[in-house]
Amino acid sequence: MKFLAHIRVTLKPTVNDPQGKTIAQGLGRLGFDSIESLRAGKYFEVRLDEASAEAAEAAVEQMCEKLLANPVIEQYYFRVEPVAEPATTG
Amino acid sequence: MKFLAHIRVTLKPTVNDPQGKTIAQGLGRLGFDSIESLRAGKYFEVRLDEASAEAAEAAVEQMCEKLLANPVIEQYYFRVEPVAEPATTG
Repeated sequence: MKFLAHIRVTLKPTVNDPQGKTIAQGLGRLGFDSIESLRAGKYFEVRLDEASAEAAEAAVEQMCEKLLANPVIEQYYFRVEPVAEPATTG
Repeated sequence: MKFLAHIRVTLKPTVNDPQGKTIAQGLGRLGFDSIESLRAGKYFEVRLDEASAEAAEAAVEQMCEKLLANPVIEQYYFRVEPVAEPATTG
């Protein structure tokens, strides 16, 4: 079965985020004066072929732990959804 | 009112994503052989203080158009949710 995983990786709340601070300052200079804080992170969309939703979630969690996120300073959230497979022809 | 916006920025589907391809290859070398494709993007969490949800959504859309995304090659999605304000003391 085909699945699509949406993965968000952000710095843990206690970790300083200079990139986010810089972006927030840039938005402030553009006139956006309602911003209280901004955190920058990474986003991944992964299409994968696994036997079940549970297997897909387990694989995505391992991808996050091993490569996509640094568990020491980052946290991650993901959502896995099934993807309709196109009908095979012939 | 306080709002929290979750913003995802990705390259448009027609735009080549060498970063995503490299990450997918890295995951493949780690033994993840079920990946069909991977797209890399950016993720932002913005806390802002606006008069209404409509005003917050309009502000976030302008932030995306003007700074957070490059509308020529990137697309963005966002979701704005209200944040419970802590009770003021004293």
